[in-house]
Amino acid sequence: MEIPKGFWFAATASGIKKEGLDLGLILSERPAEAAGVFTTNIVKAAPVLLAQKRLATACPIRAILVNSGCANACTGKEGLADAEEILARLASLLEIAPEEILPASTGVIGQRLPVTKIKEALKTLSKALDPQRAEEVARAMMTTDTFPKMETKRLCLAGGREISLLGLAKGAGMIAPRMATMLAFILTDAALPREFLQESLREAVENSFNRITVDGDTSTNDTVYLLANGASGQTLKPEDQALFKEALTEVCQRLAYLIVKDGEGATKVVRVRLVGARDDQEAFRLGKTVAESLLVKTAFFGEDPNWGRILAAMGRSGVDFTPERVDIFINGVQIVENGLGKGLTAERKAHEEMKNKEFSLTIHLKEGNGSAEILTCDLSYEYVKINAEYRT
Amino acid sequence: MEIPKGFWFAATASGIKKEGLDLGLILSERPAEAAGVFTTNIVKAAPVLLAQKRLATACPIRAILVNSGCANACTGKEGLADAEEILARLASLLEIAPEEILPASTGVIGQRLPVTKIKEALKTLSKALDPQRAEEVARAMMTTDTFPKMETKRLCLAGGREISLLGLAKGAGMIAPRMATMLAFILTDAALPREFLQESLREAVENSFNRITVDGDTSTNDTVYLLANGASGQTLKPEDQALFKEALTEVCQRLAYLIVKDGEGATKVVRVRLVGARDDQEAFRLGKTVAESLLVKTAFFGEDPNWGRILAAMGRSGVDFTPERVDIFINGVQIVENGLGKGLTAERKAHEEMKNKEFSLTIHLKEGNGSAEILTCDLSYEYVKINAEYRT
Repeated sequence: MEIPKGFWFAATASGIKKEGLDLGLILSERPAEAAGVFTTNIVKAAPVLLAQKRLATACPIRAILVNSGCANACTGKEGLADAEEILARLASLLEIAPEEILPASTGVIGQRLPVTKIKEALKTLSKALDPQRAEEVARAMMTTDTFPKMETKRLCLAGGREISLLGLAKGAGMIAPRMATMLAFILTDAALPREFLQESLREAVENSFNRITVDGDTSTNDTVYLLANGASGQTLKPEDQALFKEALTEVCQRLAYLIVKDGEGATKVVRVRLVGARDDQEAFRLGKTVAESLLVKTAFFGEDPNWGRILAAMGRSGVDFTPERVDIFINGVQIVENGLGKGLTAERKAHEEMKNKEFSLTIHLKEGNGSAEILTCDLSYEYVKINAEYRT
Repeated sequence: MEIPKGFWFAATASGIKKEGLDLGLILSERPAEAAGVFTTNIVKAAPVLLAQKRLATACPIRAILVNSGCANACTGKEGLADAEEILARLASLLEIAPEEILPASTGVIGQRLPVTKIKEALKTLSKALDPQRAEEVARAMMTTDTFPKMETKRLCLAGGREISLLGLAKGAGMIAPRMATMLAFILTDAALPREFLQESLREAVENSFNRITVDGDTSTNDTVYLLANGASGQTLKPEDQALFKEALTEVCQRLAYLIVKDGEGATKVVRVRLVGARDDQEAFRLGKTVAESLLVKTAFFGEDPNWGRILAAMGRSGVDFTPERVDIFINGVQIVENGLGKGLTAERKAHEEMKNKEFSLTIHLKEGNGSAEILTCDLSYEYVKINAEYRT
């Protein structure tokens, strides 16, 4: 795997979770420019509040400390003090300033971090740093995720210059448009100015993590960081910037896909495409309502081309449209034409398509040129099981 | 059971469903004033479109014909013609005008009604009419409902005058604030002017059926009818009107409760109470987001007082509030004080309370005098099973 230059990784089992890796560290050899996009939830976890404060200054960033098993959310002043105490200890071990470390937490809300255990584990962690251990950090971020999520991308610029991007993410539950319960860290060895990083990250998130849904819930801890340390020796020129944005969006989209694929209890990934809407916003709103409908998602699980539920979900989205004009397709199979069912033969074919682990649902409104695409998954028994038993 | 005077009932198995009662008829001996409240979904079923047209004229109503097993929604002009053909046949059998019959359908969307079978069954139906068969009609309305839903209320007015109300309903799936997939018919033998009926029904629905949620989906067929035939000989005086509204709201609330209790796969009814909000609208919006959250509903199923999910749902509701002020109670047990958890002992007590089939979740914002109450249920494996296999 092509890892960006100048980043070191380590992970350990600190005991926040009953077992397994739960604490991860990313260190940049040199000061990196950084950007962040955070949850829109009014209830924000301590690490989110701290990170927002750190990124508001122009101070460069050297490290990211991430833990799973405990969200450090709804923990009040004590939660903020816990996080600061941990970051101060790590800073002293790494011989950097606490302000140069970005925190991220995921897990149960309302519980305090086991500060002593974590501080103890930081020693091990800081000694284990290695450029080849990125996957261990991806594992340490996992909560109900069933596999670690990593993507890399090598970008060749004019004149044979090369830079790399690496993305790590965790998802699984509380995944909805407008970010969702997820963490993602994107690292690059390119040198880029901070304003450009922030702008690129915002755009990339809008077209990736904000276009997926697992259960419609939004968390208190959603965080995406982008670090650019310049270790490749390549400073991006203005003419390279479009290429960089494209590569960043691609990495984010591939991570977003992995998050939906690993959605809690998900057995299928469905690409919901709205075309022919009056504008992109209306297309997104319609698509989101369909992609989040429990009745639609259970029908996906049942491999049932129940287009009535799709139309009914659209009808309550708040967007005006003409039902009598709507066409609906499952992959290439048309099941609705001008608002009416195409009959049992078409539905049987669509049912066959839905047996795949991935398929697309295309809805054509024939009203304009607006479009949107949202990734969603089905709703299975397993989702209920995972979330009924989460804390037991 | 105290049935309002002058109403006759019949039900039969017409073959729309594979088995069981699926066609019900309510006949008023004399012309009744009527009111209706319908789905806000843009996609409206044929019976909804027909009924809205009928109620827009001042024509009195004599009958309601209801079927389950087929929603007659997304069936285009043919669906409208099917419904009209059936109503014309019934009108001729009952020797009334087709415009005097209100239709209602519930079941699978996108399938045509089996017109021939239904017309055949109408003969049996019209001969079976009997004042004692209301429960059979409640049974004929059922789709995934597990029990018929009926409520009666006897109202004593000044001077020993008496009137009765009877409510029949079906619910189960696609139940959300703003009506939901449900049918309800309220009958009274009082004499009341149409405008008053419409106003009373709108208010009663707002405070009952619009305050429940099972899965957040809204259907194409939601309908509540109120018929007042005056058979008691009592014309309500202006001073009786408040009493009538109260009785009507009570019947609607009891039916709404039964709908949630019988929510698809529901094992628990939860009364979500928001108090101390800045106004009632904000309280409702917060309560609705909590009551519809999949993560909260699966935690109810798991009997887990996971207040972090409750706060996280509130935080994405779009309503501004101060998390550090929020108190949360399960029945009488406080689990959150000023945004912070009250600890494991409190949670264990709350867990005990959640073992009950019914409990309340009270959220106090301490910001004003706004309040709202919403009935919801838990989300179980069974919901997924029912909705994955609905059409198979």
